[in-house]
Amino acid sequence: MNQDYIRPNEWSIIEEGFDAERVKSSESLFSIGNGAMGQRANFEETYSGETFQGSYIAGVYYPDKTRVGWWKNGYPEYFAKVLNAPNWIGIKVLVNGTELDLATCKKVSVFKRELNMLEGWYKRSFEAVLPNDAQVEVHITRFLSLELDEVGAISFDISLKNMDGEVTFIPYLDSGITNEDSNWDDKFWNTTKVSSSGNRAFIEAHTMKTHFKTCTFMQASLDYKGVSIPGTLETSTDTFVSLQFSQKVLKGEKLTLTKFGGYTVSRNHPEDALVDAANEALDKATNLGFENLLEKQKEAWARIWEMSDINIQGDIKAQQGIRFNIFQLNQTYLGTDSRLNIGPKGFTGEKYGGSTYWDTEAYCIPFYMATKDEMVARKLLKYRYNHLEKAIENAEKLGFTNGAALYPMVTMNGEECHNEWEITFEEIHRNGAIAFAIYNYYRYTGDYSYIPEMGLEVLIGIARFWHQRANFSTLRNKFVILGVTGPNEYENNVNNNWYTNYLAQWCIQFALEQLTKVKEGYPEDYKRIMGKTNLTPTECDAWKKVADSMYFPYSEEYGVYLQQDGFLDKDLVKVSDLERSERPINQKWSWDRILRSPYIKQADVLQGFYFFEDHFTTDELEKHFDFYEPFTVHESSLSPCVHSIQAAKLGRMEQAYTFYLRTSRLDLDDYNKEVEEGLHITSMAGTWMSIVEGFGGMRVVNDTLSFEPRIPKQWDAYSFKVNFRNRIIKVKVASNELTFELNGDNGISILVRGKAHELLPKMPLNVN
Amino acid sequence: MNQDYIRPNEWSIIEEGFDAERVKSSESLFSIGNGAMGQRANFEETYSGETFQGSYIAGVYYPDKTRVGWWKNGYPEYFAKVLNAPNWIGIKVLVNGTELDLATCKKVSVFKRELNMLEGWYKRSFEAVLPNDAQVEVHITRFLSLELDEVGAISFDISLKNMDGEVTFIPYLDSGITNEDSNWDDKFWNTTKVSSSGNRAFIEAHTMKTHFKTCTFMQASLDYKGVSIPGTLETSTDTFVSLQFSQKVLKGEKLTLTKFGGYTVSRNHPEDALVDAANEALDKATNLGFENLLEKQKEAWARIWEMSDINIQGDIKAQQGIRFNIFQLNQTYLGTDSRLNIGPKGFTGEKYGGSTYWDTEAYCIPFYMATKDEMVARKLLKYRYNHLEKAIENAEKLGFTNGAALYPMVTMNGEECHNEWEITFEEIHRNGAIAFAIYNYYRYTGDYSYIPEMGLEVLIGIARFWHQRANFSTLRNKFVILGVTGPNEYENNVNNNWYTNYLAQWCIQFALEQLTKVKEGYPEDYKRIMGKTNLTPTECDAWKKVADSMYFPYSEEYGVYLQQDGFLDKDLVKVSDLERSERPINQKWSWDRILRSPYIKQADVLQGFYFFEDHFTTDELEKHFDFYEPFTVHESSLSPCVHSIQAAKLGRMEQAYTFYLRTSRLDLDDYNKEVEEGLHITSMAGTWMSIVEGFGGMRVVNDTLSFEPRIPKQWDAYSFKVNFRNRIIKVKVASNELTFELNGDNGISILVRGKAHELLPKMPLNVN
Repeated sequence: MNQDYIRPNEWSIIEEGFDAERVKSSESLFSIGNGAMGQRANFEETYSGETFQGSYIAGVYYPDKTRVGWWKNGYPEYFAKVLNAPNWIGIKVLVNGTELDLATCKKVSVFKRELNMLEGWYKRSFEAVLPNDAQVEVHITRFLSLELDEVGAISFDISLKNMDGEVTFIPYLDSGITNEDSNWDDKFWNTTKVSSSGNRAFIEAHTMKTHFKTCTFMQASLDYKGVSIPGTLETSTDTFVSLQFSQKVLKGEKLTLTKFGGYTVSRNHPEDALVDAANEALDKATNLGFENLLEKQKEAWARIWEMSDINIQGDIKAQQGIRFNIFQLNQTYLGTDSRLNIGPKGFTGEKYGGSTYWDTEAYCIPFYMATKDEMVARKLLKYRYNHLEKAIENAEKLGFTNGAALYPMVTMNGEECHNEWEITFEEIHRNGAIAFAIYNYYRYTGDYSYIPEMGLEVLIGIARFWHQRANFSTLRNKFVILGVTGPNEYENNVNNNWYTNYLAQWCIQFALEQLTKVKEGYPEDYKRIMGKTNLTPTECDAWKKVADSMYFPYSEEYGVYLQQDGFLDKDLVKVSDLERSERPINQKWSWDRILRSPYIKQADVLQGFYFFEDHFTTDELEKHFDFYEPFTVHESSLSPCVHSIQAAKLGRMEQAYTFYLRTSRLDLDDYNKEVEEGLHITSMAGTWMSIVEGFGGMRVVNDTLSFEPRIPKQWDAYSFKVNFRNRIIKVKVASNELTFELNGDNGISILVRGKAHELLPKMPLNVN
Repeated sequence: MNQDYIRPNEWSIIEEGFDAERVKSSESLFSIGNGAMGQRANFEETYSGETFQGSYIAGVYYPDKTRVGWWKNGYPEYFAKVLNAPNWIGIKVLVNGTELDLATCKKVSVFKRELNMLEGWYKRSFEAVLPNDAQVEVHITRFLSLELDEVGAISFDISLKNMDGEVTFIPYLDSGITNEDSNWDDKFWNTTKVSSSGNRAFIEAHTMKTHFKTCTFMQASLDYKGVSIPGTLETSTDTFVSLQFSQKVLKGEKLTLTKFGGYTVSRNHPEDALVDAANEALDKATNLGFENLLEKQKEAWARIWEMSDINIQGDIKAQQGIRFNIFQLNQTYLGTDSRLNIGPKGFTGEKYGGSTYWDTEAYCIPFYMATKDEMVARKLLKYRYNHLEKAIENAEKLGFTNGAALYPMVTMNGEECHNEWEITFEEIHRNGAIAFAIYNYYRYTGDYSYIPEMGLEVLIGIARFWHQRANFSTLRNKFVILGVTGPNEYENNVNNNWYTNYLAQWCIQFALEQLTKVKEGYPEDYKRIMGKTNLTPTECDAWKKVADSMYFPYSEEYGVYLQQDGFLDKDLVKVSDLERSERPINQKWSWDRILRSPYIKQADVLQGFYFFEDHFTTDELEKHFDFYEPFTVHESSLSPCVHSIQAAKLGRMEQAYTFYLRTSRLDLDDYNKEVEEGLHITSMAGTWMSIVEGFGGMRVVNDTLSFEPRIPKQWDAYSFKVNFRNRIIKVKVASNELTFELNGDNGISILVRGKAHELLPKMPLNVN
């Protein structure tokens, strides 16, 4: 780990003491979001020190022109940029004419940040001595409302400690913002109108190219001793508008500025009604008032936690870690809008332009299936169904035909928007994860209807892709898949990546099985789909031939499948034998050296063993784990969770626990020295899996939920809840206790360590 | 071929008729240069149609920031941009106040361009009807002087055909120029002073970052009926200066503007003396006058042709092609400055930033060795010796140690400046070509002194690189070289590219041999080099182990070495079975599809058979040629020449002739649909090799020049000269005649078809 300043606490993320070096990291860690928008924990008042400003609106992006040294055919013309949106939180504060700026204060003390995950609010408080010797005490509370998801609220309290004086608040909106990653000085926002009315102000702006129209709005009010103080318009420029409130205050008396602000967007409103919608949102917020809106926030978060909390006893850092992960996932995506997805940095930074990676299918869907209504996972699947046409176009750009679909590596709207050839064109295993998620959804929820309604068309497009992408090797008398990048992105353009070949084979087999099932069970759907796809028995036979004769690289010597052809030619030095100073290799080594090394960025063969655990014996898992884990450097946030789950399954609890801590506190402890760029949102679902699937050993076996619970010796107990087919099952594991409780009206059979038990409503089940 | 408008002519490149669509292509084809500077054949007068402006100064470049979508460790921070330099050729022409602009003329007729290769000048003439109905006849002659290599000269004749009138010439200098490839609107030139004095003007400007200081200068004079007409200063801005000459002319009378212009550069003069140097150059040019300077141009080119001409009888297009190639090579590099090298586009375009590729060693050195004094080739070798420290730094950036040297893929000053990982980091075979050139230079010239003086240090650095770059495969019990790109850039990051492995083995063996020879023959040099490199016998043993146990992929089934591991897994469809519409694949296919195909961009295994022909039997060559040629798409300009030479050796004259035409007329006939971007200069040396080594069958065998002449049936006869160890040998080949002539005072033994002959001065030798 690289930092350790976050105070351990069960329900809160807490920082104490002001350190300018930590501002950017804390801006990431204390980020808030409500699924519709989110923002880094930037200061409201002016801060002239190092900061990374970020406020993001879900689904609003900019297609930046792809610029590379050497163009290669097939590159997408643009990549999606996660856009910093106009600032609505800003409040300049002057005391006797001198501006409050923590970077210029003579002294800052009792500085504290708290992100309360239980209730969904963020507080910052401090005392400071301004350059003019005014001593102030400040308390700020901020939250993005779940109740009114276009609205955020700020309560900014200030009092003077050593004198009477005049305090001026200048709350503002600013659309003259930039992106940190705007290398080419492009302008992303075009501001069309700045206006104000009483204590409200509005900036209408649209994104360049994509023309997302937005109204950024605010309303401010000042309260002193229970009296409301009126404000005036202070400034209005092309991209800026501010109000001004001034008040003489007595020493020790509290002055409170309340600011509501946020965005209305053309994705959700008619383009010409954005200001009206903003006024409406502000009216609702005003009617409720800050305190009532905060109450509703607490209630909304209580409902989320009711279903998704994991409680760990006896290990406060592990507890804090898992709650932070669950909290951030819920801040990012709540499953209310099937046009949205789960960006790898959520609303906490700009990196990895685009919102949707295979992370969603491989990591996030299991979390959302088990902690929300199944409709949420269905929406995530439907998102891909809605992009099927674009996936077919994407495959066509690469020379595929006949409805073959290649889902993009990164996307905002279904189009590919990443531009490294070794990833965009070759990391095609992502296509398999999308098919796997359809299988996984059905396996977990039992809801088959998705397959005839939508899933089968996706499966056909994907099977067509694999059929065309494989070629027959006369040398091997097998089908091979050449020139791919597996999940381990520290190998590029390899032949016969085992994981990819295995997934390709499985995708074809699964598609063929579903074709038979839909034909038998849903003849109307079958007819519609056959008409739409022109699929023929001859084509299915050709797919089958590929699946039946797929080549898998294998080492007789080691008894393991090889990550790819030629893996054993490498200099097989284990990670433990590498100098500490050489790591992380992605920061220390040139790319070619990484590529020819045996080092594995994240689970690759083992990702296949994770997806298809039931295809292999535990002995086989152990052999592969023992072969590959020693070469794995875990330099992807998606790596430790899979290894934690497999280590737990192999009974290696120390190792499982180490991987768990690494995944759950990746950002809190800044393992990868980059938390200031934002949080690793999608891998947080992997942390959840580490507990539920790893320690809890939860699986679905033939429509039945099965558990193999284990507990790390560092913990006294842990408990979690899952929603399985509309029953809420609570599992509590302690070293000498194992309890299952059912919330709902109908009993259910479960398997515990292979043995069937009936779990009845209001009848906790203790297993030995 | 894609165009056929160049008139066949033995000594000139001729275009007739004005076609705006061809302007950019002709600007490339009619480019002129004198080794120190060069320029595209842009019009002097204003042209508002499509044009690609380019004037280039040897050795003046700009290090543009590397910008890629995703940064990879080891990327060079910049890539060298070939810079468009300030324009000195510009002459605005007004007739009765209306500007001459071929894009706006009512009519353009008898338009003709001629690039006279024999004498080294470029002429353009036309008649045109201006928008104001003035009919003009124009003749312009331009050349870049070999005598005064900072000076170019223009003679611009105009006469009015249908009226008396007033003609105004506005000759100008302009440093407000841009690069076509400046994607990011960066400014490359900073103009510091614009001045004029009488009929002269100067713009002092320096490049950003690299701070090459330049003075662009001009002098103009107008002559009418033998009378010199004075001019005045017309305009002077921050980046522009012009003179003005006006004269009333009678219908049919000729008016001539003579303009001298060019550059003085801080590479060659003290920084504060550039204007003085410019005045001095102009004084010299003025003293000689346009006509005398042109006479000296003809004499200088006569001397070049005396040594390097190849005459082909009975095939005018083949004749034109080879002379165009020889002419352009000499326009680009004359061997007078060891700081310079041979850019792939010479002075004809911007593409492929950087001036030095492995093309120099693999293709250009043989041409310069045989057509110039051996000191020219030695200068090209010394260029790399001077960059040895940078090559060691380059290797260090990629993690190599102990003085291992990796020469850059592309460079201006020894630093790597290309930024595709698959090329920059992996196309390491270039290192072998640099060692091979040292061997080839010694083999051809017999001058061993270069090796103890400079070459051995380079060989040690290169051997160290290969030793470290290979790794031992316990699986194969051999050394392997993983993650490379061979000469065939349609494969990236492959394992055990045969060509690379073979070259690596040879480099080590050759270095070890030279160590022994230098130790025995040049003990002082040996001591100095050992002191400098800290080379130990133990280290040499370690190198030897790698060379002795190098792995080479081989197919028993086909009896051929495989281009790389896994080549036979590909779908082995021959090029002849591809749809015509699919080609060129680099324009039609996405990169991943190219990579997994069997198609070969340029000779790869066959490049090894070309370098090391004497290591293999003709049967082996034939087997490999027959295996690989059918998969070769020749989408690199460097491809057809090697295949032409090998086809000739195998007695396949039809095929050899087809490849010859393709290489020699690549640009004239625009085979690759890109001539408007500039010419393929370095591959032109390959054309020369196709005749001398291919048809002439010239080799050096144990210090003796050997010939196996053949003649394509399309030709009546061909002849060439070579400088071999200070004898000039002229070879003439006809279907029924084979003559050798010696120019010099000492006789020499040669081999003809394996039989020894004595060639004596002034005694032509007729063989059978």
